[in-house]
Amino acid sequence: MNKLQDIHSPAELKQVPADEIPALCGEIREFLIDSVSKTGGHFASNLGAVELAVAIDRVYDPERDRIIYDVGHQAYVHKLLTGRRDRFPTLRKFGGLSGFPKPAESPCDAFITGHASTSVSAALGMARARTIQGDDYDVCAVIGDGSMTGGLAYEAIADAGQSGEPIVVILNDNAMSISQSVGGMARILSQMRTKPAYFKFKRVYRKTIGRIGPLYRGIHKVKEWVKSRALPGNIFDDMGFYYLGPINGHDEHTLEQAICYARELRIPVLLHVITVKGKGYEYAERWPDRYHGVSGFDPLTGIVPGETRDFSSVAGDTLCELAEQDPSITTITAAMLDGTGLKAFSERYPDRFFDVGICEEHAVTMAAGMAKQGLKPVFCVYSSFLQRGFDMLIHDVALAKAHVVFAVDRAGLVGADGETHHGVFDVNYLCAVPGMKVLCPASFAELREMLAVAVQELDGPVAVRYPRGGEGDYRGRAGAPSVVHTQGNDLTIICYGTMLDSVMRAQGLLVERGISCEVIRLTRLDAPDWDTILPSLQKTKRLLAVEETADAGCVGSRILAACGERGIVLSAARCLNLGQGIVPQGTVEQLRALYALDGNGIAYAALSMLDRL
Amino acid sequence: MNKLQDIHSPAELKQVPADEIPALCGEIREFLIDSVSKTGGHFASNLGAVELAVAIDRVYDPERDRIIYDVGHQAYVHKLLTGRRDRFPTLRKFGGLSGFPKPAESPCDAFITGHASTSVSAALGMARARTIQGDDYDVCAVIGDGSMTGGLAYEAIADAGQSGEPIVVILNDNAMSISQSVGGMARILSQMRTKPAYFKFKRVYRKTIGRIGPLYRGIHKVKEWVKSRALPGNIFDDMGFYYLGPINGHDEHTLEQAICYARELRIPVLLHVITVKGKGYEYAERWPDRYHGVSGFDPLTGIVPGETRDFSSVAGDTLCELAEQDPSITTITAAMLDGTGLKAFSERYPDRFFDVGICEEHAVTMAAGMAKQGLKPVFCVYSSFLQRGFDMLIHDVALAKAHVVFAVDRAGLVGADGETHHGVFDVNYLCAVPGMKVLCPASFAELREMLAVAVQELDGPVAVRYPRGGEGDYRGRAGAPSVVHTQGNDLTIICYGTMLDSVMRAQGLLVERGISCEVIRLTRLDAPDWDTILPSLQKTKRLLAVEETADAGCVGSRILAACGERGIVLSAARCLNLGQGIVPQGTVEQLRALYALDGNGIAYAALSMLDRL
Repeated sequence: MNKLQDIHSPAELKQVPADEIPALCGEIREFLIDSVSKTGGHFASNLGAVELAVAIDRVYDPERDRIIYDVGHQAYVHKLLTGRRDRFPTLRKFGGLSGFPKPAESPCDAFITGHASTSVSAALGMARARTIQGDDYDVCAVIGDGSMTGGLAYEAIADAGQSGEPIVVILNDNAMSISQSVGGMARILSQMRTKPAYFKFKRVYRKTIGRIGPLYRGIHKVKEWVKSRALPGNIFDDMGFYYLGPINGHDEHTLEQAICYARELRIPVLLHVITVKGKGYEYAERWPDRYHGVSGFDPLTGIVPGETRDFSSVAGDTLCELAEQDPSITTITAAMLDGTGLKAFSERYPDRFFDVGICEEHAVTMAAGMAKQGLKPVFCVYSSFLQRGFDMLIHDVALAKAHVVFAVDRAGLVGADGETHHGVFDVNYLCAVPGMKVLCPASFAELREMLAVAVQELDGPVAVRYPRGGEGDYRGRAGAPSVVHTQGNDLTIICYGTMLDSVMRAQGLLVERGISCEVIRLTRLDAPDWDTILPSLQKTKRLLAVEETADAGCVGSRILAACGERGIVLSAARCLNLGQGIVPQGTVEQLRALYALDGNGIAYAALSMLDRL
Repeated sequence: MNKLQDIHSPAELKQVPADEIPALCGEIREFLIDSVSKTGGHFASNLGAVELAVAIDRVYDPERDRIIYDVGHQAYVHKLLTGRRDRFPTLRKFGGLSGFPKPAESPCDAFITGHASTSVSAALGMARARTIQGDDYDVCAVIGDGSMTGGLAYEAIADAGQSGEPIVVILNDNAMSISQSVGGMARILSQMRTKPAYFKFKRVYRKTIGRIGPLYRGIHKVKEWVKSRALPGNIFDDMGFYYLGPINGHDEHTLEQAICYARELRIPVLLHVITVKGKGYEYAERWPDRYHGVSGFDPLTGIVPGETRDFSSVAGDTLCELAEQDPSITTITAAMLDGTGLKAFSERYPDRFFDVGICEEHAVTMAAGMAKQGLKPVFCVYSSFLQRGFDMLIHDVALAKAHVVFAVDRAGLVGADGETHHGVFDVNYLCAVPGMKVLCPASFAELREMLAVAVQELDGPVAVRYPRGGEGDYRGRAGAPSVVHTQGNDLTIICYGTMLDSVMRAQGLLVERGISCEVIRLTRLDAPDWDTILPSLQKTKRLLAVEETADAGCVGSRILAACGERGIVLSAARCLNLGQGIVPQGTVEQLRALYALDGNGIAYAALSMLDRL
């Protein structure tokens, strides 16, 4: 029996007899284990959502109905069932299948997701559009308990609940977000999980359905009954949702029934589904964190290649060392304990470590409160997620001149996660925050040095931004706002961070062509080191600014503006960067090549500026 | 009897006998009516919080304890009681008393507030600092029901609840935010208001206090009793707070007792206080919206000067007209129905109007969902509040290329509200959003034209940004991405929006000095009209870019970068703007003068560039 390969669309999925579904789910799990062990990708969350995704695609018509997977990394099964099985070997690769929902990839993907907690807002907008346009498709958001901790989800639940719009929100509750759900929502859910409704639901449901008939005759009566019922207090009921559950998320048949029922109620319904992250793969069930996102593993032994040393772990270790000497240092993460390298810190200094859940806004303002009272908080956060805290950076940190340190991880290209995750806007938005000092290391040694300076010596808001992954050839220490790596007369190349490696490769190529470049690397981005930059430009008259960031607000444009204001005349200038900043998935090397930010591309740009092509 | 004038500090306030407090509150109300009727300011919310603020400053030591007023515009009474009475004639004026808490103004102001929903986050940060540092001051956040709708507040309540930190959150519930609380939280609170606890609290409290003695002997026992009690379900209990209330917010004595009790519990406590917005001033009680923020009124008759026509009302009217022809147009506000001029729209098209509460994040993503399904949503929002939606602009709107229109009100200087409210970052952050088209009108006619173009003709994300208040001398229509207002040879002045009026004044002054300026006004900011700009600069060789925005990412710097990249050599260039963007309060005229953005300042800058001073 091999059903999976016969399913190319939800229509074919719907043809599978109910009694063959458990076997199909088994096949799907085998496929996921086999495929993701080779390609890497988000793993444990997809294993946990197999029955849920099957049930959703059997109940709904995903081409017409709008299914929105929050965060989106748990949509692999949905992709598998909607005609994209053959593309799984290309998962998260350049030009390949995205690891997240993409309407451009399939009409069955309703909305781009990647950042947490957006699904209910988007679903509500769609539901309202349906109602205004007199259409009748269904709208369903699938959101994890981790994403439910985000304020955006709360805002959306509150609005959706009072809207009365028919909408089904499926809460996929595996009792953990990327690391571990924290805060009030986790507490609430853990209370709800133990309620007897779990066991009673099936019986009630069947009785109800029995009463109203197989074709949902008299559904209006049920609606009235539901609405008039004195709603008992849980947060979703209170917000105007009809709460159903909890349901066993690995019983596909019950899931189908429950989703049908929820859909037919024609009001906002929250369906609480309990799943086991990593379900069906022993190692992933036991260590769901380790298998949350993997870069490939041995499917038989479950062995994940050992982690190599990266900027995140160096940051975490450095913060541990600093905290040992200074009891006023605290660290904060927004549900990225492992990703930001804070595991050791959290164990050594549990009283000074705070995981606030997927709540970047709160993290920033809470840190400002800590700083106001004399602590030295360090918020470790990914560049693209800190976008959520932009207003708080200005309003709560900058206006108060609060000494909060932002350890901005995943700055620049992140690779396989693609457009939603690249950290390509922070150079602009961090430098726009009044008084924010923005430091950028190019090596582990510099990261250590800069974190120490940021925490111990500087005042006011400070960001230290560093990339995903490890250091390149350069292992030095800057100790100054800029470093002149090579001296030259034909051209000044300005860069920062690990972009140095590409630049030095280009410099080598250019030397072979008899061109002498002055390579200046900046370590401070908010206030570029004019004392080094301007004399160099006056000498070479040519600027090539090479940056792994979007064009708007890039440092190169600021240097050119400064030249304009100071009357420094250049004969040629070019800002080489990521343009608008919508960058596809691929390895960092591939993406650098795509944007001419590798050694060859940079050398080519330089030759073109010098009319030496 | 005239107590108020004898109170210069919380210490003196504490000396007032309990039986004289009602009279003192009466005096405070008289003072507020008299003072705010002259200076203007936030009125109704302060009248409603008189007893609450008195009770807080009598229970706590605001110099040492940390009291954080959310949004902050209801802190007038606190200011009055902490030595700032004499400065009230300068309220919200240039160099005068701020309308919001400012630590720089008084050690009794714990934290800058202005944007909604930050107080609990900041308070929790402070509470954690206290615990880590082994200190023992108290921390109290005072938050309105409107602010409680914001996702940031939810994130903070969830984190605070599970933290166990002793912290008192006073929910000042007047059943409305700036216009009317909407959504799930309003629903929850309205259920809670009717609960019998209101009437029982006093009795229970007295019994409890009686049992544990006047000096809170045995408080530990109470704590244990509170903790061990099966917490009944309301959202705050569920989140780990001990819920107390609701309490009559105009019974100062009970408030004092309740705050003392809440403080002594040494756990996270939410004290639910019911107040009447506008309390004690008949007109304000009846029309709290009209008296939320006023620019002065007749204290006897309550007559507020008639509203003059402003950009907001023109936007609202235009959207009504557009909506009449196009049923797919919807409008969204984040609790700023009146401020954004949407009142008429909300009445004429109630099914296409959405007030989501103080939830800018949700508004942006919800709009993206609407656009994805074919509606044309217009989110009307203040520039400084849209900062909250920065990540959603990129992640949910731009990546999907969703056709959402942002009617960005209060762009540029806003005047009396000061540093937390100026819209001086949007030129940068909007232009940084991939594919965002940014339009800027200088007259009502242009606003009408641009909104129509934005909604009907353009695609993808579009922002139309316009200032607070009315139009200036210019009443024209652009119809093009730029307008050459005067031709000249000595200097190119580039501006946009109502900054044109200052520029034309400067141009007049310069003409008198025999200097001929080419004044170019841009109507599109994301893609400046190079075809007009560059030839002009090639002719004059001098650029003066005049902008009512922060320096980072200003259009002038982008023009200079473009000149650098295109090899256009200038002999002089200057970006005249608001620098880092932390701009104090004052009239727009005063602030323009301060930053040399008035006619004289611009003319001076031009003369200095021309060495003609």
